[in-house]
Amino acid sequence: MYPPTTSSPLGHHHLTAQILNYQLTHGMHLRHIHLKQPQPSHNTTSSSSSYPISTSIFPTPFPRALFHHAHNLQPIYNELYARLSDNESWLYNSVIAPLLPVDSFARILWEIHLRMKNKRGGGGGGYGSDISMGLFRSDYMLHVPGEYNEEVEVEVGVSLEENDNAGLRLKQVEFNTIACAGGCHAKKVVDMHRYLTRTGVYNDDGSLSSAANGEGYREKSPITLSSLPTNENIKGLADSLATAHDIYYGGPVRSDLATKTGVLFVVQPDNFNVADELPIEYALWDRENPIPTYRVEWGDDVLERTCLGGNRELLFYPHLQGEGSRPVEISVVYLRAGLEVHEYDAVGIECRVRLEQSRAIKCPSVLGHVLTFKKVQQALMGPGVLERFLDSKEKVSAIRDTFVGMFSMDGDSEEGRYARGLATDPESAWRYILKPSLEGGGHNIYGEDIPGFLLGMSSESEWGRYVLMERIRSPVVGNVLMSRMGVEESDVVSELGVFGLCIWKKGEILRNKTVGWSLKTKFADVDEMSVVKGFGCFDTPLLV
Amino acid sequence: MYPPTTSSPLGHHHLTAQILNYQLTHGMHLRHIHLKQPQPSHNTTSSSSSYPISTSIFPTPFPRALFHHAHNLQPIYNELYARLSDNESWLYNSVIAPLLPVDSFARILWEIHLRMKNKRGGGGGGYGSDISMGLFRSDYMLHVPGEYNEEVEVEVGVSLEENDNAGLRLKQVEFNTIACAGGCHAKKVVDMHRYLTRTGVYNDDGSLSSAANGEGYREKSPITLSSLPTNENIKGLADSLATAHDIYYGGPVRSDLATKTGVLFVVQPDNFNVADELPIEYALWDRENPIPTYRVEWGDDVLERTCLGGNRELLFYPHLQGEGSRPVEISVVYLRAGLEVHEYDAVGIECRVRLEQSRAIKCPSVLGHVLTFKKVQQALMGPGVLERFLDSKEKVSAIRDTFVGMFSMDGDSEEGRYARGLATDPESAWRYILKPSLEGGGHNIYGEDIPGFLLGMSSESEWGRYVLMERIRSPVVGNVLMSRMGVEESDVVSELGVFGLCIWKKGEILRNKTVGWSLKTKFADVDEMSVVKGFGCFDTPLLV
Repeated sequence: MYPPTTSSPLGHHHLTAQILNYQLTHGMHLRHIHLKQPQPSHNTTSSSSSYPISTSIFPTPFPRALFHHAHNLQPIYNELYARLSDNESWLYNSVIAPLLPVDSFARILWEIHLRMKNKRGGGGGGYGSDISMGLFRSDYMLHVPGEYNEEVEVEVGVSLEENDNAGLRLKQVEFNTIACAGGCHAKKVVDMHRYLTRTGVYNDDGSLSSAANGEGYREKSPITLSSLPTNENIKGLADSLATAHDIYYGGPVRSDLATKTGVLFVVQPDNFNVADELPIEYALWDRENPIPTYRVEWGDDVLERTCLGGNRELLFYPHLQGEGSRPVEISVVYLRAGLEVHEYDAVGIECRVRLEQSRAIKCPSVLGHVLTFKKVQQALMGPGVLERFLDSKEKVSAIRDTFVGMFSMDGDSEEGRYARGLATDPESAWRYILKPSLEGGGHNIYGEDIPGFLLGMSSESEWGRYVLMERIRSPVVGNVLMSRMGVEESDVVSELGVFGLCIWKKGEILRNKTVGWSLKTKFADVDEMSVVKGFGCFDTPLLV
Repeated sequence: MYPPTTSSPLGHHHLTAQILNYQLTHGMHLRHIHLKQPQPSHNTTSSSSSYPISTSIFPTPFPRALFHHAHNLQPIYNELYARLSDNESWLYNSVIAPLLPVDSFARILWEIHLRMKNKRGGGGGGYGSDISMGLFRSDYMLHVPGEYNEEVEVEVGVSLEENDNAGLRLKQVEFNTIACAGGCHAKKVVDMHRYLTRTGVYNDDGSLSSAANGEGYREKSPITLSSLPTNENIKGLADSLATAHDIYYGGPVRSDLATKTGVLFVVQPDNFNVADELPIEYALWDRENPIPTYRVEWGDDVLERTCLGGNRELLFYPHLQGEGSRPVEISVVYLRAGLEVHEYDAVGIECRVRLEQSRAIKCPSVLGHVLTFKKVQQALMGPGVLERFLDSKEKVSAIRDTFVGMFSMDGDSEEGRYARGLATDPESAWRYILKPSLEGGGHNIYGEDIPGFLLGMSSESEWGRYVLMERIRSPVVGNVLMSRMGVEESDVVSELGVFGLCIWKKGEILRNKTVGWSLKTKFADVDEMSVVKGFGCFDTPLLV
């Protein structure tokens, strides 16, 4: 039986109190946002309260073999996506062309690409760098193969002896190529669960073990340090940026103006989730050879604080420097903004163009960015596509094995018409998720809601913005989740994210590795998964 | 001119934003308190938002020589207070006897002492350990010698070339012997100011330097890494507890019942300042040889979770253990509670008695605790007192040099009558502070308020609870302080606290060292100093 039961409500209270204490002292908080403008006096705002991010009380069982398998898949996915971004004609035909009439974000990004490519931009002209960088995150859920059964109640086996997990597979939920978040929180939650384990709260003398048989027999709790993997996301993400920085720094031209070279985080204004960005910055400053790292806000702030040097260096003027002081030459632009269509007003577009025109390495570049559209996942399912971009049968088969059915919703193709049939029929729609090509959660339509949603749209031509994806049949396990809504025990399902670094230069892959992972867990009866939006929790896998 | 000016209001805004970010991600927060009881279901409270602790925007200049001098004083003070606690008759005659009729807290603590000493307690009888431990904090302010002048406007010199500071002295504000707080916050604020310095925000290309002469000439900012001392409070405090743990562990008797030995933090329920306690616990768990460390709340929680073993071992049953599991033998009881008189109801008294009866090392014991009364400082001024407890003229003179005038307010002595005259006369009262013997801030009466306060009391006999202390004439310097009230620039004064460890055994001093320090800064026109109560900020000395 999982999770282990606590001995009493008081014990439960004590455990949540320990978690809240740990979160408070380790920056595992989200900020309450008070929008205030800087004032022309010293009395600027300093009100800045915060609240703990949602977390699971216990780690959640996850098959050890599949945890490691996901890590091994990442370099193959990295390679695949690097090659996709290098193939403009495939990208255009398979992803962009179908979206252009229906998806404004795809249109905006492609127009920026064309402006760069055709050097129609004012000033510096086209793309300033032929090196691309991705800090990707591939998300998976566990999947129970076989016929879909609405009442699926397979549990993840907790005991190492059990073979319950033998049939489980990893299926990809999505592949993210821009502003992949959660790395810092994920690392800290793992540290927290490991701390709680080390201090004995999960298993001191077996006290927190299962009392399933009702006869006072105490099983040992399965939660042990050796079953909780360590997590080095912060170091991994910082090292990734440092690697790109070194590649830039080893290049030929540097500005005479700048006194130093550094990394630039482009961030969203008034972000309530800065605690997921800052530890990476601090880690870059804390290296033995510190890498100067700065934050700048997407939009006006970028345009005011940067300019292009004579060799297209991106020159950045830190906020706390006075007039006349010398700029920093930016080696790597790390985008934690520019991922949502509303950020692309005229200023946002100029901001992106400025960055792309520079010789700084962009994480990601525009062509890396568009790979985050769900349409890409669907296009990869086409016959022969994986074979075209991957150089071995083993790689193709490993990647294809993570796919679930995914269909275009366009009105012109056989496939699209088939998918439209599935999606509008309540008898079949419940087995699917309708996903727009936009990045991020909160926009998906689930199962029985799909037919009504589609029929309520003003025109069927808009349907082409979506892809239809089979629902992953995830096994459940019990856990207790703690969020702002309270502490609640129920069946949960988890999503494993794997972070990958890839740096490439027109066909040549310079760096390719797995750099970290995150586990998010939500109640099984909740569709959405977004911890910062209040759905789901950060978690640690209990490897079984 | 100090502090360095920022180039613009926007720059100022950017600096405070960086500080808020750093605080959020490093646990430099106080908790909003929502009082809720544990519920008999899983829906216990998990709401726990927090807000940043007050901090200075810039480090505050402080004379380097006096900073180091305060460190050197600490072992002498440690030794002095250890010897005082060993001398019951002096303690009784000089401190307790005058307070007994007027101070209920002194009465309660002394009754506990007598009950221990006379073995009148039920169960285990008298004191369980002859080893005492102090984690002390001695607080100093800078003092301008000479005639008191209300309009004192001496500034701390910022430049190393200046000799302005040559005449300054350290004067002791108070000496704390129980639950000395601020160590963790102090360390983190120092790390923060050092981080801001490393990243160049105070002095990138001189941009934040003074523009005092109005001709665009840029002085270099005086804020450099080498002028900001590092702070290892968390390690120092944890190492101190580990030292006492090792001394206990090296002793003769250990329980057959217990499976391990550990340190117990006795804390106040619903403390909003847990972020100043927890890092010390984590550091004990994080040692190469981890020391199990637990929290228990003062009062019922102590009585329910502990008992005395056959050899007076303090046996602690962690909250998350079930019935029948084995206890932890406590080596060191670290009191972060029991410092306020309201905590000593019948349960609180039994709690303290239980702890004192045990063979665990108490930090502090009752006789160490009573040394925190201001009456001790005043009694130490008596002729020959320091000479009696310290073994060299150099030590006596170093300690006496930190004293300002301090008078008993009793009605029986010549000194008391003289002090009563000073305190009730508005012509003289403004030069003094009236301090009750209670620990902690918030109870002092300042200067011109003293005569009215005294005359408003129901009986002159109550005046004996107070001591009259000369105000320290602190030099001022400009700084910008950030609190919940906003960001404000003005003249400030600072208070340097030095943490000391002393472990002694009836006349024999086993350990004696300086373990850390804190700097708190407040506006010069504010009397009170208590950061957690909203007066003053944590700060870093800029050594000049």
